[in-house]
Amino acid sequence: MSLNQLGIVKRNIIRADKAAVEKLSRFGVATIHEAMGRVGLMKPYMRPIYLGAKMCGTAVTVLLQPGDNWMMHVAAEQIQPGDVVVAACTTDNQDGFFGDLLATSFQARGAMGLIIDGGVRDVKDLTEMNFPVFSKAIHAKGTIKTTLGSVNVPVVCAGAMVNPGDVVIADIDGVVVVPAAVAQQVADVAEAREAFEGDKRAIFASGVLGLDYYKMREGLEKAGLKYID
Amino acid sequence: MSLNQLGIVKRNIIRADKAAVEKLSRFGVATIHEAMGRVGLMKPYMRPIYLGAKMCGTAVTVLLQPGDNWMMHVAAEQIQPGDVVVAACTTDNQDGFFGDLLATSFQARGAMGLIIDGGVRDVKDLTEMNFPVFSKAIHAKGTIKTTLGSVNVPVVCAGAMVNPGDVVIADIDGVVVVPAAVAQQVADVAEAREAFEGDKRAIFASGVLGLDYYKMREGLEKAGLKYID
Amino acid sequence: MSLNQLGIVKRNIIRADKAAVEKLSRFGVATIHEAMGRVGLMKPYMRPIYLGAKMCGTAVTVLLQPGDNWMMHVAAEQIQPGDVVVAACTTDNQDGFFGDLLATSFQARGAMGLIIDGGVRDVKDLTEMNFPVFSKAIHAKGTIKTTLGSVNVPVVCAGAMVNPGDVVIADIDGVVVVPAAVAQQVADVAEAREAFEGDKRAIFASGVLGLDYYKMREGLEKAGLKYID
Amino acid sequence: MSLNQLGIVKRNIIRADKAAVEKLSRFGVATIHEAMGRVGLMKPYMRPIYLGAKMCGTAVTVLLQPGDNWMMHVAAEQIQPGDVVVAACTTDNQDGFFGDLLATSFQARGAMGLIIDGGVRDVKDLTEMNFPVFSKAIHAKGTIKTTLGSVNVPVVCAGAMVNPGDVVIADIDGVVVVPAAVAQQVADVAEAREAFEGDKRAIFASGVLGLDYYKMREGLEKAGLKYID
Amino acid sequence: MSLNQLGIVKRNIIRADKAAVEKLSRFGVATIHEAMGRVGLMKPYMRPIYLGAKMCGTAVTVLLQPGDNWMMHVAAEQIQPGDVVVAACTTDNQDGFFGDLLATSFQARGAMGLIIDGGVRDVKDLTEMNFPVFSKAIHAKGTIKTTLGSVNVPVVCAGAMVNPGDVVIADIDGVVVVPAAVAQQVADVAEAREAFEGDKRAIFASGVLGLDYYKMREGLEKAGLKYID
Amino acid sequence: MSLNQLGIVKRNIIRADKAAVEKLSRFGVATIHEAMGRVGLMKPYMRPIYLGAKMCGTAVTVLLQPGDNWMMHVAAEQIQPGDVVVAACTTDNQDGFFGDLLATSFQARGAMGLIIDGGVRDVKDLTEMNFPVFSKAIHAKGTIKTTLGSVNVPVVCAGAMVNPGDVVIADIDGVVVVPAAVAQQVADVAEAREAFEGDKRAIFASGVLGLDYYKMREGLEKAGLKYID
Repeated sequence: MSLNQLGIVKRNIIRADKAAVEKLSRFGVATIHEAMGRVGLMKPYMRPIYLGAKMCGTAVTVLLQPGDNWMMHVAAEQIQPGDVVVAACTTDNQDGFFGDLLATSFQARGAMGLIIDGGVRDVKDLTEMNFPVFSKAIHAKGTIKTTLGSVNVPVVCAGAMVNPGDVVIADIDGVVVVPAAVAQQVADVAEAREAFEGDKRAIFASGVLGLDYYKMREGLEKAGLKYID
Repeated sequence: MSLNQLGIVKRNIIRADKAAVEKLSRFGVATIHEAMGRVGLMKPYMRPIYLGAKMCGTAVTVLLQPGDNWMMHVAAEQIQPGDVVVAACTTDNQDGFFGDLLATSFQARGAMGLIIDGGVRDVKDLTEMNFPVFSKAIHAKGTIKTTLGSVNVPVVCAGAMVNPGDVVIADIDGVVVVPAAVAQQVADVAEAREAFEGDKRAIFASGVLGLDYYKMREGLEKAGLKYID
Repeated sequence: MSLNQLGIVKRNIIRADKAAVEKLSRFGVATIHEAMGRVGLMKPYMRPIYLGAKMCGTAVTVLLQPGDNWMMHVAAEQIQPGDVVVAACTTDNQDGFFGDLLATSFQARGAMGLIIDGGVRDVKDLTEMNFPVFSKAIHAKGTIKTTLGSVNVPVVCAGAMVNPGDVVIADIDGVVVVPAAVAQQVADVAEAREAFEGDKRAIFASGVLGLDYYKMREGLEKAGLKYID
Repeated sequence: MSLNQLGIVKRNIIRADKAAVEKLSRFGVATIHEAMGRVGLMKPYMRPIYLGAKMCGTAVTVLLQPGDNWMMHVAAEQIQPGDVVVAACTTDNQDGFFGDLLATSFQARGAMGLIIDGGVRDVKDLTEMNFPVFSKAIHAKGTIKTTLGSVNVPVVCAGAMVNPGDVVIADIDGVVVVPAAVAQQVADVAEAREAFEGDKRAIFASGVLGLDYYKMREGLEKAGLKYID
Repeated sequence: MSLNQLGIVKRNIIRADKAAVEKLSRFGVATIHEAMGRVGLMKPYMRPIYLGAKMCGTAVTVLLQPGDNWMMHVAAEQIQPGDVVVAACTTDNQDGFFGDLLATSFQARGAMGLIIDGGVRDVKDLTEMNFPVFSKAIHAKGTIKTTLGSVNVPVVCAGAMVNPGDVVIADIDGVVVVPAAVAQQVADVAEAREAFEGDKRAIFASGVLGLDYYKMREGLEKAGLKYID
Repeated sequence: MSLNQLGIVKRNIIRADKAAVEKLSRFGVATIHEAMGRVGLMKPYMRPIYLGAKMCGTAVTVLLQPGDNWMMHVAAEQIQPGDVVVAACTTDNQDGFFGDLLATSFQARGAMGLIIDGGVRDVKDLTEMNFPVFSKAIHAKGTIKTTLGSVNVPVVCAGAMVNPGDVVIADIDGVVVVPAAVAQQVADVAEAREAFEGDKRAIFASGVLGLDYYKMREGLEKAGLKYID
């Protein structure tokens, strides 16, 4: 193991299986997070820059330095169709690391979107380009290109560990990371769960209570719940 | 008075008068807050999960434990048509306590919406169901069903005291709580105020200044305001 | 220089040149911020109250006291067509200093919008009136009219210095302040920059990488970037 | 019930029993909070202004307006020896509502300290006077005396409901509120709990694990915990 | 006026009168802020790095770039005995811009301390050196030396406007900025105010209430305050 | 790879070399972070619960559920002398997961301290026991023992990746994590760096400027820095 995690670009990463990614793309973030055993979520401050933004793809990771987006350009070259760029920073920083030109470049390479624990700008353009971004902030503040970070090293983004090649799914409920090695397994669990959920919606719509459907009454009584008038 | 506020469900609560609730539903949160004498507002971090979300109804209160939505199921049974569920938590927690299944259940019982000092998920579904929610966060994080909280006890939600049966009104300006006992009185004051405001809009549109309309100039001069060139 | 910055209304302020303002209105906040040499931005917590809100105009500044909007009424009289009102507060406060009546008055005077380091209310009305506001919060909380602040003194609003007469431009990327004395110069730089950006969009869309277009490879290698497989 | 909660001073309040207060003063906040059934805590942003600050007494409540400390003077007159002043505000505000002069006055009346969901100043003096304060902020910002709030009405302070006469206990772990009606009962439970805790300290110091002492192993296994090597 | 505020070092600045600075050093931040007419305070998130830290001196201002402390070295050369360095940043950033080596250098030049809207490190060393710092954060994160900011330009630091040469006073109550031109005047007002306060402390200690001393009772009654039993 | 990261206790972890840990314990967090190439720091909201708290040891990691400290008891058994317990949570939660009894147990097992991205309580006891803790909050709020998390799995704690066996160093400047595999290497770099720093302190104390010592003047001029009078 090398001491330094900065100044590295890993070119050959093992991306999650395409079929698994495609299957995961059919489910929402809440469902996948449940299928994962309730881990893998980013913090809820990560929000879409426009209504309806969502994405599913394999992670190309970027480790940025504060106020510096040099590595975003380096990352662009590593993007393959179907990838999602996941950008972390060595410190909290909300500068506008990303705008319409990088988005044009990313889109030309086939990127599905960007997840960034920092700021973005040119949001009107990004919206018109239909290029989805989930970020911590919207900020016009420009960045420099001076200091090395890394591309395709493991990163912590918005509280979640992301390895290059992992599947990243984002929708209005948030952002979830599925390790490449369990992508198919999670997709299968999500599928089973989704089918099951569909049935339940009709049942609850008919007026059946969760108290009865899930047989909670006994447990509640045992726990000591008291009904008073 | 019992020591413990946890593990209790109060079934018979005194809801605010229906006519008063209906009348309050005609006014905005800012107007009602003024009619209340400028008290009763929740903190401004409570935001609607979709544009246009709003509600007015009588409170069924819930006291949640962190990461646990058991009491939401217990609360469902206590909902009567026209109620708004108001959920507080014993500690700051942004987990997704509420999603499409509970919303289906709440809607089937006649709930007007949910106010929750925590997180919600399945926001796309909730939007399509037209089920309004005001929350502190959107978060896919799932919850367990293990620990007792309470239903229909007095709660502090987002900084506001809410008693079961109080009227809760929410729109894009925020969330306000009107104690049941003064609901009619507040509705009347709001009505008078609203009428009065309508007149003023036309006056200000014509170019009359608040300085003159409200006769502020003398007070400002007395306070020492100096005009310089 | 007087000791006290409070209790003052400056009537004659030197507004930025109209032609320069008009020219600046053609560019986005990110572009103008770059043209300024990357200074002049407000903090990113300043957000538009409705989608599509934007404005460009000359600043009439207001220094408010917490929970008190008296000076907003004083400011109304100082508004000339094309002005943007920029409201700061002597302390952090998110009360609703501004609503539909003041907006009607401001609009009648020809104001282009409001930038306020505090809260606003009546957001539904403001949206229908198409009166753009960028604020720190939406809050129904009403304010009093008791304590003197000032109008048209230099203020710090959301971390940016604003002098009366400066040009203020706001769009979805944030809010930027251009000192009146350099408005024309900044507009010219922005124009040049914009033309240049337009060319680049097509180039990046064709697949050319920033790495090559900006000739970054040598610099990266010199800085020690290592590609590994 | 009157509409308006503002502009009221309640003179005769029912203070918790002196013996119960005295007994509660022997226990820490964590212990009392447990004895209460884990409710009644203020939010953890409430911190002591100096190391070692702590207090226990009966609440005289104050509802402040932002930037205005008029009601603190009104409250002073209502203080009886052994009282703790608990100050809430109608909106979030960190101004310095309290300093050495008010502290001198409060101390002369026999106040045990101040809990304030806002700011304080003259912290060096307060420390030298040994007058304990738990606050949201330290801020030199001065306040005015213009708008009515109330004294001895129920208030929400830092997320906790406080009624006049309730017992308020504060130490380095935070602030807890014990309703007057259950003060003796809570004190008794706290006493029992404390005795029990003392025994446990020695047991754990000897190397016995909570896993064994609390007989957790079976529950963990049942829940599915897996030990791997 | 030049377009760019970055890349500038102003060598000759007009420092506030030494006698005025000396006189101001005798008063606390709360008193000086009052003498200023309640303006000039930094935000309350600026806290001393050790108990007892305080300073009074003339400002040498620094405008930093995020993650870059190059300008701190440039500033060192501009320090004269009695100066306080006031460092702002072009964006929110909590990196450790300052540590024991720069402190050694600043101290050798005669600096009284540092006010920084960012992070500092080596806090144990700084404490042992008795070099006072008020900062937004303590953070070990190192910085680079690559991008130009400025020295001795007007800056906005923690919400306050600071011009080079202004007097900056910091103590446990916060940080206040006194413009050089009014330093003597403010010192005189502070002195008068302080004398006056001293008398009051004894009066309040004797049990006289502010209600009576400030003759508030009539005003409260007029405002509608109601005493109930 | 298993799907689920929850419900696991890894017993045999590879701890960093004892000699390397001992050597690292001689250096401060800022120095080690530099020796690491400026990565590995936790976020600056992690603060010591008492002045002088510091620690250095090998990580036993814990993944907690919100409001639940069951896994802290499970972790206790895995502690070996010289370990530091590092506790993360599946969601943001500031409850008091840890108090004097667990501390007694941890200390009996030889733990050096606790790093927790959550709350702690019984701070007075912990201080008297001289048991160092770095936490996000101090909060009396108690927790339950119901839901499985994990022990000795990789966790993200306060933004930093921590693997069981890594070296964790904490002092007043923050918390840094050194991967076990590079502990010796980092210790050696830190030692070299420290020696070098010592020399510099004397040089700067003598009045030599960083501008000259680091030969920055040429670089600054090249970057365009302009000195004006």
